[in-house]
Amino acid sequence: MELECLFCREKVAADIFFPFCSLCGEPLLVSSPSRKKRFKKKAVLSLEKFIDFLPLPSINRSLSLGEGNTSLIRLSTIEEKCNLPLLYAKNETSNPSHSFKDRGTVVSILVAVDLGVKRIGTVSTGNMAASTAAYGARAGIETFILLKEGTSDHKVKSVAVYGPRLFRVSGDYGLLFNKSFSLGRKFRIYFINSVDPFRIEGYKLTGFEIYLQLEEAPRFIFVPLSSGGHLIGLMRAFLDLKDQGLIPDIPTFVGVQAAGCAPLANAFSGHKLKFTRISKADTVAHAISNPDPPAGNLVLKLIKEYRGIIVSVSDDEILSAQQILAEEAGIFCQPASATTLAAVFKLKRENKLNRNEKKVLIITGSGLKAPESAKIPAEAIPTVSLDNLENAFQNL
Amino acid sequence: MELECLFCREKVAADIFFPFCSLCGEPLLVSSPSRKKRFKKKAVLSLEKFIDFLPLPSINRSLSLGEGNTSLIRLSTIEEKCNLPLLYAKNETSNPSHSFKDRGTVVSILVAVDLGVKRIGTVSTGNMAASTAAYGARAGIETFILLKEGTSDHKVKSVAVYGPRLFRVSGDYGLLFNKSFSLGRKFRIYFINSVDPFRIEGYKLTGFEIYLQLEEAPRFIFVPLSSGGHLIGLMRAFLDLKDQGLIPDIPTFVGVQAAGCAPLANAFSGHKLKFTRISKADTVAHAISNPDPPAGNLVLKLIKEYRGIIVSVSDDEILSAQQILAEEAGIFCQPASATTLAAVFKLKRENKLNRNEKKVLIITGSGLKAPESAKIPAEAIPTVSLDNLENAFQNL
Repeated sequence: MELECLFCREKVAADIFFPFCSLCGEPLLVSSPSRKKRFKKKAVLSLEKFIDFLPLPSINRSLSLGEGNTSLIRLSTIEEKCNLPLLYAKNETSNPSHSFKDRGTVVSILVAVDLGVKRIGTVSTGNMAASTAAYGARAGIETFILLKEGTSDHKVKSVAVYGPRLFRVSGDYGLLFNKSFSLGRKFRIYFINSVDPFRIEGYKLTGFEIYLQLEEAPRFIFVPLSSGGHLIGLMRAFLDLKDQGLIPDIPTFVGVQAAGCAPLANAFSGHKLKFTRISKADTVAHAISNPDPPAGNLVLKLIKEYRGIIVSVSDDEILSAQQILAEEAGIFCQPASATTLAAVFKLKRENKLNRNEKKVLIITGSGLKAPESAKIPAEAIPTVSLDNLENAFQNL
Repeated sequence: MELECLFCREKVAADIFFPFCSLCGEPLLVSSPSRKKRFKKKAVLSLEKFIDFLPLPSINRSLSLGEGNTSLIRLSTIEEKCNLPLLYAKNETSNPSHSFKDRGTVVSILVAVDLGVKRIGTVSTGNMAASTAAYGARAGIETFILLKEGTSDHKVKSVAVYGPRLFRVSGDYGLLFNKSFSLGRKFRIYFINSVDPFRIEGYKLTGFEIYLQLEEAPRFIFVPLSSGGHLIGLMRAFLDLKDQGLIPDIPTFVGVQAAGCAPLANAFSGHKLKFTRISKADTVAHAISNPDPPAGNLVLKLIKEYRGIIVSVSDDEILSAQQILAEEAGIFCQPASATTLAAVFKLKRENKLNRNEKKVLIITGSGLKAPESAKIPAEAIPTVSLDNLENAFQNL
């Protein structure tokens, strides 16, 4: 298997322990030769349906937890109330560990098992930790999870339950990301971090599913933007579809950051090709709070090349969008996912959206990951006695 | 539409506001004439695939959240380690609100909208509240949720987020269940409670999916047992399959209760046809802690007729099974769901399982519904500084 640097155009043999360009330091991606590929629509697993587009010769089913094949839900009520037709949500919360991360994790683990790797790991603030621990458990592989020091007990528990070797690490999170690779090399632990090239390949499947569900490419895809791996994977899916002659052009990608941690949105609005790391992140959207995104420059390059957009939205806009998705569509997502709807509203205000073009929001993770984020104070719910219930109903 | 009482064999026109037999008081079920029915395997929604088996002429897609089509996961590691071949988990946690309840809720709401009902409601301790609130929000119908007084703030929030009219009600939970129907009649609120006949029809789809996934009926189905509605729905699916000549016999159903709240397991082991309500429930498996199950006598009747089994398992067995499912299979479920694996172990010890017969566990709800239940204390996770991480790895 070969990896390549999109900046230097270098191709190198895959080194899963350090998938970065030796010349420029940017993340490497899987190099995939252009050839005729097919969908296997009747297959059960999403991995099997799109295996032609993955760097895998076959799928070991015993490593899958049934990830993917998620619903594309039309947001009819929001369409009507907000005068925003053709709005869809790709509901990644129904993945096995309730976030999109599972799609990437399973591909990396398939590669790991294929290569005979005995230890895997990840550095994460939450979703990726749970996902990697779940699939590591499923594969019976020793799994190392390095969490940010401040991670809540609640979140720690929902990772610890899978039985990984788990550490809360104090110190700079960006340095921890780098450190993980040197530890990985030393202890032969394959760190499947946010921009792992095989993880990114897994995210392509979301794009293929959307294409089949809509029977065409949408005009816009809104995706929460953190490390950059997810957006790159989705974009590569549509580049593959274009390469296969199935679509004339790829959708406009809208990467969405939280205003409290927006290094890439800042660079984009300043027309810069390299981002500057943020000194202090402060947002309710913890899942995309990465002040130093490892694939940030690669995202800026691809967004420029394919005329995408990067925007930021405030915490107020995020929480309001989270509430609208729950109240109008019945979808309870984590704040990071709600940035997508907030960005739709923002672009609409700026007259950048065409009414009659399909818009897809990627709903990346479940609201149950962070129920405390929901705006309604639990104390505001009235307690009524059985005897007084009829009165309470009468008074509504 | 007609409903029928399996005890009195009475058939009556459907009254969604009070679906109980006027002669004996037991819950009514949808009466379904025996005729040739077909699967529509190429349909997108599970509802559409199995519409021939549902009391619905068509599916209004705008009311669905993409429920169903869940994975059947082979538990290979547990099979090997525990010498229990052919063990499968039907992963209902990937439903839109992360529990099996969604399958029932959507059918009842489709009926409600079809009948022009303007208000729905439910009485619940958790899963059904979130599910009903989510689908009520999706349909834009005024939704009344009555929660037990002691329900945690965490859980209340994950229901409140959908914007229903929400009350915590103090007083006896069994009386509240009855009261909801009189309030429903008075205020024209369709209470889609645990044994609503249309809700129960929705649960059949899980059975059809299992049949298609295995290409046959399994020998055993293990299902957490609370009100009884879920087990009845699953059983009806296989009775339908038998009626269609697709299977020679229905699986052996194993209803599992928590020892701390086991009115039906008590009645079963005492060879009684009617259960006695429990005065005080005490178990970690909150989702199945119903001391006075409304379809309890109907479950006892059906279990006897179709040679099923009802067992109870202790909280220790439940929590240990929950951990095994997470650590060995990568599935983090709520305690109620883990009762199924605990029951497998119990029947194995009693030599009631045949090695070479397929056993399916219904994993009813996500562990994220109750992360505090996971056995690992979050405080036991070491905090290490970045500089000491290498040492920590070395010392493992």
